[in-house]
Amino acid sequence: MHLGVFIRETGHHLAAWRHDTASQGLLNLKHHIQIAQTAEKGLLDFLFLADHPAVQGEPGTPERSGEPVRFEPLTLLSMLAAHTSKIGLIASASTTYSAPYALARQLASLDHLSEGRAGWNVVTSVNDSEARNFGQDSHMEHALRYERADEFIDVLKGLWDSWDDDAFAVHKHTGLSFDPAKMRVLDHHGQHFKVRGPLNVPRSPSGHPVIVQAGASDSGRDLAARKGEVIFTATADIDVAQAFYGDVKRRAVAAGRSVDDIKIMPGMFPIVASSEKAAMERFEELQELVDIESGRAQLSRILGYADLSNFDLDGPLPDLPATNARKARFEYAVNLARTRKLTIRQLIRELSSARTHWKLFGDAGQIADSMERWFKSGAADGFNILAPVMLPDLTCFVEEVVPELQRRKLFRHDYGEGGLRGSLGLARPGVAR
Amino acid sequence: MHLGVFIRETGHHLAAWRHDTASQGLLNLKHHIQIAQTAEKGLLDFLFLADHPAVQGEPGTPERSGEPVRFEPLTLLSMLAAHTSKIGLIASASTTYSAPYALARQLASLDHLSEGRAGWNVVTSVNDSEARNFGQDSHMEHALRYERADEFIDVLKGLWDSWDDDAFAVHKHTGLSFDPAKMRVLDHHGQHFKVRGPLNVPRSPSGHPVIVQAGASDSGRDLAARKGEVIFTATADIDVAQAFYGDVKRRAVAAGRSVDDIKIMPGMFPIVASSEKAAMERFEELQELVDIESGRAQLSRILGYADLSNFDLDGPLPDLPATNARKARFEYAVNLARTRKLTIRQLIRELSSARTHWKLFGDAGQIADSMERWFKSGAADGFNILAPVMLPDLTCFVEEVVPELQRRKLFRHDYGEGGLRGSLGLARPGVAR
Repeated sequence: MHLGVFIRETGHHLAAWRHDTASQGLLNLKHHIQIAQTAEKGLLDFLFLADHPAVQGEPGTPERSGEPVRFEPLTLLSMLAAHTSKIGLIASASTTYSAPYALARQLASLDHLSEGRAGWNVVTSVNDSEARNFGQDSHMEHALRYERADEFIDVLKGLWDSWDDDAFAVHKHTGLSFDPAKMRVLDHHGQHFKVRGPLNVPRSPSGHPVIVQAGASDSGRDLAARKGEVIFTATADIDVAQAFYGDVKRRAVAAGRSVDDIKIMPGMFPIVASSEKAAMERFEELQELVDIESGRAQLSRILGYADLSNFDLDGPLPDLPATNARKARFEYAVNLARTRKLTIRQLIRELSSARTHWKLFGDAGQIADSMERWFKSGAADGFNILAPVMLPDLTCFVEEVVPELQRRKLFRHDYGEGGLRGSLGLARPGVAR
Repeated sequence: MHLGVFIRETGHHLAAWRHDTASQGLLNLKHHIQIAQTAEKGLLDFLFLADHPAVQGEPGTPERSGEPVRFEPLTLLSMLAAHTSKIGLIASASTTYSAPYALARQLASLDHLSEGRAGWNVVTSVNDSEARNFGQDSHMEHALRYERADEFIDVLKGLWDSWDDDAFAVHKHTGLSFDPAKMRVLDHHGQHFKVRGPLNVPRSPSGHPVIVQAGASDSGRDLAARKGEVIFTATADIDVAQAFYGDVKRRAVAAGRSVDDIKIMPGMFPIVASSEKAAMERFEELQELVDIESGRAQLSRILGYADLSNFDLDGPLPDLPATNARKARFEYAVNLARTRKLTIRQLIRELSSARTHWKLFGDAGQIADSMERWFKSGAADGFNILAPVMLPDLTCFVEEVVPELQRRKLFRHDYGEGGLRGSLGLARPGVAR
């Protein structure tokens, strides 16, 4: 079983930042180091950082939640590389708002710095608030974004293959520091990008940093199946998870890959306590802290930035226009409201904890039971952990759930070799010629 | 006196990588950490990283020199932030090929990570090999590049002022994690950029990362005088250095700034040994290792990528077309060849060590004498050190020249407070409203 930790400074519950046990102060350096070291103590596969190159919320109107600001992922992970030695470091970065050459360099550099622990979560970004920070008026249309992401990944892989692994086996006596026969000029001319190369970073320990992807829409699944190596997904329902797992693995095989080339890791939001009852109590304590306006803003975001301000919180969810943002998440929330006949207030409450991710309550044994069930029934190859409150819930997971998983022989007792690819059991890619 | 170290993996002499005492292997992590820690042991103000988002040389034809590849500066410095605690971290980044919002975030993030030690060396990039990595056919024209750089700096400062220093003094009981009255939406609409904001990083410890600039052309000096805080420059001649120093300080005053708001730091290439004779011998040892083809490639680069392949190495430098790359450096080299009547081979030899920077030979006392003369005669506020071979020449400088400067009361005995701005004696900027 593979495990990652989805880093959020104060935690994933919407009200985590208001809880006494959460980290105090924003961009707290020591706290981030503690998160990383706690996760590494728990032998987790990776740290995962989301990214959104804008303040969360509508342009100029940040959400009232706890973390409108945060560290930039690539710089933070480069720093954390120095405070850890084995855990993987996955940075999200946008294919819509980055330049391929610049991102290829930074990811390759992180992979060198961390001795093979870098991963890239490919995101296409979500809304106009990002567009307007990058000289555009509105966010690129969904299908076009995915087309661009697809090409973007190819360009990065091409740049990462600029040099053979042994191109710089220097022969000082010749005066030539590299072997020209071991260099490739990409010279990419595509629909979206024109990039010459070669990359000014040697081939990195991972060959290619691990490609992570989270799109659950049809275009997202298609991209994931063809090019993703770790797939982060969000669902609270084992049937949906199994269907997604089967579908993506089938698509991967159809694309000529092996089922083992792609690891499916749903998000999970664990509340671990001495008993299920104690876990529920802790959960209620957090729910009580939810500010309804923050909740409405978060719901609006999940619903593609729908304007909910004119609807009765105690009435039903109105019909909403289709979204150009995250399509799968939108559908999940609408279905939840419809099938369970929730009012807007109830839906806010339902999503204020784990958003659209899987929530688990109980003691370590119960949590491990549920994880084992998903893992053994073709719903997941592992999980990306969304700790409700940071640091305590991550510490508790590492100290109580990890040993339980180890006892069941579901989880490693030591890190192996080979960096993030080694942990995940993913082969190091050769150079494409 | 302020001192920085210009990091190059194997050193600044063109043949450093061929010398037995240079670092072995490229992108050697431990070696970079040693450079940083040696510089910090010497109480130097900062580490300085150049940047060139392409392989050095013509597109597809990297130069034969020792370092066609390197770490990307922002990721490397974020890692080095964890291995040091006081020394400043200056990353070069291009205003021609970066997006302002993305760079503002990364620099602010580095400033948070390092607790106020970040600086940004504003470069406009030099040639078509970079352009072709970023979807363009040719490099932007010199004057336009500087116009764009000027606007770029304003956008970054505006983004860095998105939040008051105390905007996130959270009041958990209100459910609001920031004070909306302490947020500013930049909404920049300029000639080159359209950027909305606010930045998704809180105001950083430095207020603004320190602005470093190195342009020596007329547009470069003008930009430096108006917006630069540290000016890196290259000349081997004290008269030229004094004229530059006086000119830039006068321009700064004319722009409404104080002479102390701007620190002028020429590059210097010190060969320190037990005597001047021993230093010259060491220098000759390095000169003997110069590969003439690498030297021709470097000369071509200094001369704006002029094609020198058809000229007799033992003949005079031909007349060359004006350059769109680094204008001041071009003029320096042409003047050197003309006034000293050098052949191409002699010019290559002359520039293969310190390029267009100041070379110093001698024992620690002699080196300190020269530095003191420049410092006290209005030629420099300090120096950016180009160690000939890394690590030995940096170690030698730190162990022998720094104590000599301290004895003369020219250099600090301890780091103070206030991060890089504190070391440099630069005020922390308030928020522009």
